[in-house]
Amino acid sequence: MEILITNDDGIYAEGIYVLADALKKFGNITVVAPDTQCSAVGHAITITDPLRVVTAKRNGSFFGYAASGTPADCVKLGIKAIMKKRPDLVVSGINLGGNQAYNILYSGTVSGATEGALLGIPSLAVSLDTFVTPDFRPAAAFAVKLAGMMKNKKLPPGSLLNVNIPHLPDGRIKGVRVTTQSKTCFNDWFDKRTDPHGQTYYWMTGDYKPEDTDKRSDLNALRAGYISVTPIQFDLTDYAFLGELENWGL
Amino acid sequence: MEILITNDDGIYAEGIYVLADALKKFGNITVVAPDTQCSAVGHAITITDPLRVVTAKRNGSFFGYAASGTPADCVKLGIKAIMKKRPDLVVSGINLGGNQAYNILYSGTVSGATEGALLGIPSLAVSLDTFVTPDFRPAAAFAVKLAGMMKNKKLPPGSLLNVNIPHLPDGRIKGVRVTTQSKTCFNDWFDKRTDPHGQTYYWMTGDYKPEDTDKRSDLNALRAGYISVTPIQFDLTDYAFLGELENWGL
Repeated sequence: MEILITNDDGIYAEGIYVLADALKKFGNITVVAPDTQCSAVGHAITITDPLRVVTAKRNGSFFGYAASGTPADCVKLGIKAIMKKRPDLVVSGINLGGNQAYNILYSGTVSGATEGALLGIPSLAVSLDTFVTPDFRPAAAFAVKLAGMMKNKKLPPGSLLNVNIPHLPDGRIKGVRVTTQSKTCFNDWFDKRTDPHGQTYYWMTGDYKPEDTDKRSDLNALRAGYISVTPIQFDLTDYAFLGELENWGL
Repeated sequence: MEILITNDDGIYAEGIYVLADALKKFGNITVVAPDTQCSAVGHAITITDPLRVVTAKRNGSFFGYAASGTPADCVKLGIKAIMKKRPDLVVSGINLGGNQAYNILYSGTVSGATEGALLGIPSLAVSLDTFVTPDFRPAAAFAVKLAGMMKNKKLPPGSLLNVNIPHLPDGRIKGVRVTTQSKTCFNDWFDKRTDPHGQTYYWMTGDYKPEDTDKRSDLNALRAGYISVTPIQFDLTDYAFLGELENWGL
């Protein structure tokens, strides 16, 4: 099995190292990941600058390719310029921080897997729902389980699995739920400040405390201590509204 | 009517100037747009750097606010930090280049309107399907028509209208079609080069020549000389696959 691994926290993040180490038992691992932190880049790609690629070591050994681009760039580069064989699986992660609800749109982690799915390759995005003192092992163990299943199972063309792992000790995770994307949003605002030179600047900040009445959602699964697995796809057409829009008389 | 305008080509692009000028007859226009070219940033937001905002003049007069962020940042900033009243409409564009098919995912123009829709405001993305010698007037005229209709019509919560205008003289545009997002992809590859210092770099490049058998698609409407109006939404859940995934025994 040829596996391409990327992330958005950068090639030197802990999560991608744990992931690559766990998946190597399935075959050949190729890591192509951003050379810097790329959180919240969404599905950005780099078209006005050239991309640079250098090899990256970890623990003294060759680990992968560090690119001067986004996760979506890295997956394109991996498949079209670096790997000799087309991968059988693309895995993006393990991200520090959950990617549930509309946060999926801002997520570089999800966009790495999205690029794989758009290129016709079975793809997973794996995120751990914490920002502090992460233990990536339960998330890696589930990624291994899912990667093993992907050898025999098929995803619909263009779809991928978005996986979120609650940050609980291994035995405390209650199970796995197949979920929907929660329709709740991050509540963000701007913290306006003045720099030492008298100039105004803003920090985007916010919190995530929305109620979600959808019991099947990724958000509620995580809150209840379950791993969430949401199949996502990228035909954004609002089919339910097409008929009404046709009646607008455009 | 309070209207917030953004784009991804930057506040000094021609398209946003033509758009703002055309829409001012509806009420108060507030322009908040990136201070530089942001094409293909997707739904990126800026969380690890602070955001700067300066006023921008055009033709010697105040035009709007130039921010050091992405289109999604600009819409958040406009609504949450700059405008005194909540806007009734968010319009993003007029983009140089079409945003149809899966290109929607990479588009900063669409992501500006997406941010408006997620914040509960009726939103439009407007793109002109050319990169050379653009005439933005037919696109602006259609944006005016649509903005006028939006006063009396409702979009579903979380949905927006993605509008693409073929680059034809005004009288040659054949009409308007309510469309679906084409399921075709840009065919991209990497042009590998060596810089004057002997180092390798890559340019992402490609073409867009796919066949599309879906007669209702945005791509086919544009190719046939019609304006395409696609309602899009951001619940990415692949509902059709949920049942089968539940049978995987995760």
